[in-house]
Amino acid sequence: MSENTWSAIEKTVAQEAFKKAYERETNDLIDQLSEKIKGVDNIDAVWEIHDYLSAKRHQIDGRYYLTMQKYLGQENDYSALVFLFADLLKEKWLLREDLSGLSPDKISKISALSYL
Amino acid sequence: MSENTWSAIEKTVAQEAFKKAYERETNDLIDQLSEKIKGVDNIDAVWEIHDYLSAKRHQIDGRYYLTMQKYLGQENDYSALVFLFADLLKEKWLLREDLSGLSPDKISKISALSYL
Repeated sequence: MSENTWSAIEKTVAQEAFKKAYERETNDLIDQLSEKIKGVDNIDAVWEIHDYLSAKRHQIDGRYYLTMQKYLGQENDYSALVFLFADLLKEKWLLREDLSGLSPDKISKISALSYL
Repeated sequence: MSENTWSAIEKTVAQEAFKKAYERETNDLIDQLSEKIKGVDNIDAVWEIHDYLSAKRHQIDGRYYLTMQKYLGQENDYSALVFLFADLLKEKWLLREDLSGLSPDKISKISALSYL
């Protein structure tokens, strides 16, 4: 399959990879939050947690929810996933083996972008 | 002292009461946050905590920080405190004894407003 054509299998691989990254990143956020809360003994530390959650929410909304809407919507634009997967690989929410099943040219492109 | 005139002693009482309410409300927020975090095992629960903190921050900013700026600024407008203290009394961040030292007419007005 070429870069802009996604087979049914590739779509499934992409959806699974997407789901795994989402689970990892949100579970990590829950862990981080539980950890951050431990040392909190003043209100400024509470507002720091609030700022942290605001930033993460903004990031996760943009990264996952908007992409999910695309999936479920009419667009079905899988090509944009290449860029998202590169980011997720770079930040280690995705592992290289999660992409196994995608065509070599897609994996190459995702890998190359992940080094930027 | 009449309702719109605040003696030096009354100003000290008001500042102490204000400080106590602030300490109680922010300490309660820290406790609530520690409690809420315990059951969190999914990302929606994290966003609920974020919403809770956004609301509390908005409330505490308006209630205390703006009032503190008035204190420290040129305005020194203690008359507005009557309304704030009524709210704080209603929500139990202030106790009636914290107001001891204010003139009877101020205490009456604060009490009356706290029932609204």
